[in-house]
Amino acid sequence: MMQAKSLITSALKRSSPLTSSIALRQIHVEKRIEELNIELPSPSQPKANYNIVCHAAGNMLYVSGHLPIKADGTLCTGRVGPNGGGRTIEEGYEAARHCGLNIISTLKNQLGDLDRVEQIVKVFGIVNSTTCFKEQHLVMDGCSDVLMEVFDKPVGYHARSAIGTSTLPLDMVVEVEAIVQIKPEE
Amino acid sequence: MMQAKSLITSALKRSSPLTSSIALRQIHVEKRIEELNIELPSPSQPKANYNIVCHAAGNMLYVSGHLPIKADGTLCTGRVGPNGGGRTIEEGYEAARHCGLNIISTLKNQLGDLDRVEQIVKVFGIVNSTTCFKEQHLVMDGCSDVLMEVFDKPVGYHARSAIGTSTLPLDMVVEVEAIVQIKPEE
Amino acid sequence: MMQAKSLITSALKRSSPLTSSIALRQIHVEKRIEELNIELPSPSQPKANYNIVCHAAGNMLYVSGHLPIKADGTLCTGRVGPNGGGRTIEEGYEAARHCGLNIISTLKNQLGDLDRVEQIVKVFGIVNSTTCFKEQHLVMDGCSDVLMEVFDKPVGYHARSAIGTSTLPLDMVVEVEAIVQIKPEE
Repeated sequence: MMQAKSLITSALKRSSPLTSSIALRQIHVEKRIEELNIELPSPSQPKANYNIVCHAAGNMLYVSGHLPIKADGTLCTGRVGPNGGGRTIEEGYEAARHCGLNIISTLKNQLGDLDRVEQIVKVFGIVNSTTCFKEQHLVMDGCSDVLMEVFDKPVGYHARSAIGTSTLPLDMVVEVEAIVQIKPEE
Repeated sequence: MMQAKSLITSALKRSSPLTSSIALRQIHVEKRIEELNIELPSPSQPKANYNIVCHAAGNMLYVSGHLPIKADGTLCTGRVGPNGGGRTIEEGYEAARHCGLNIISTLKNQLGDLDRVEQIVKVFGIVNSTTCFKEQHLVMDGCSDVLMEVFDKPVGYHARSAIGTSTLPLDMVVEVEAIVQIKPEE
Repeated sequence: MMQAKSLITSALKRSSPLTSSIALRQIHVEKRIEELNIELPSPSQPKANYNIVCHAAGNMLYVSGHLPIKADGTLCTGRVGPNGGGRTIEEGYEAARHCGLNIISTLKNQLGDLDRVEQIVKVFGIVNSTTCFKEQHLVMDGCSDVLMEVFDKPVGYHARSAIGTSTLPLDMVVEVEAIVQIKPEE
């Protein structure tokens, strides 16, 4: 209801100061995060000669591959699947959710305000898998689900690919990169 | 029919000499698919909390990872390569071709008219491979070839990456995602 | 020379205070490559039904997966990691550097002038790895480092993902694809 109202307000005022409608929307996403009782991890920092995100034409934000780091700072490691994997689908799902939360934390850190996300465009998830594990899509649901919980349709409704691989940096369970369209800065 | 008319009208409005060729192109791609005797599979549907495509700035369409599903609905499964692979390069090529056809079917379903494709920009193919198989590029040619058969140069002439991996969702032979630039809606 | 002139003219026409710095930058990148004593490999050529790059909306250039080919034409092959890998992290790093140089050579060939690179937006590197190798990020530093040496911040400061896999086309050590924003043609 609030959303409808702010949309109408914003439509009414396009070329005027957007302040009030922005003020309304300002706390939308972050309030939902609170309501969901989600604790965001610390935002990722560049670790080598590359950036956490890169801003390109069309207000597209390219988000580097993110790790499944929990809010307490520990990294989810291991391979999903039977026969030497040690990680269950549920643990993989949880790890992919943490990747999503780390991406959200990076977005908040970069944008200041998560309501500046126009569209979660695309996520690509790579799941550390035993050779016989073939349910990487169920693992990646952990990332897709949390993006939808937080941003909802249409903003959070993204394209996605999920693949398996035999090994990932630092033995992380799953790595996720993203492409996000943002609103132009006011 | 309405769409064809509006395209022609809009071409006329631009007073461009391209008018007649645009009118001709209107049924160009789907006619070629018929001439090639290609039967498109049913368009993919979202299976979880993500979309089959996502439309972003610049009329870019991000196409989720597509599976090698044949027109009869069966999925091409298995690993390409000797030593426990079971799938030949030819079978891999055929599977990649099916991925391409599934992407085309999705585009048709999303755009209504395949002549609205401005450019197949990029495809990324991941081939389910035995450890000793090193010809993933020959497998992915199945996808590139069908995109070029259907869209031709310059529209179908895309950038591409091909890699191997040890395992994919549902044991599919190859997965392909794409980025496609579309014409703005009239 | 003609190109330099037209760039300066166009800068002047914009009556922008950036005129002199643009004129300076014109030979900036290629001079730096000389100063760094870097020998670029020959530009890649299309090998099948796809292109080396694809130009899309927003002056985005999608660069196909590039191989680690040395300036002398030899390909870096093998798997990084202990237990049957045979390639050290240092050799992997060197190979990733060669991928970066091949991408730069392709950009030079496509753009004429490397100062037309507006932003190295994103690189994605896939490292041929033994199952127990978990330092793909250290391998990909070879690519990131050379991009930063050549383009520096902010132009060369990119987003990145690095993953491992069990096998790559032609047994190459590492494959890198890129997204690059270019300046509009004058």
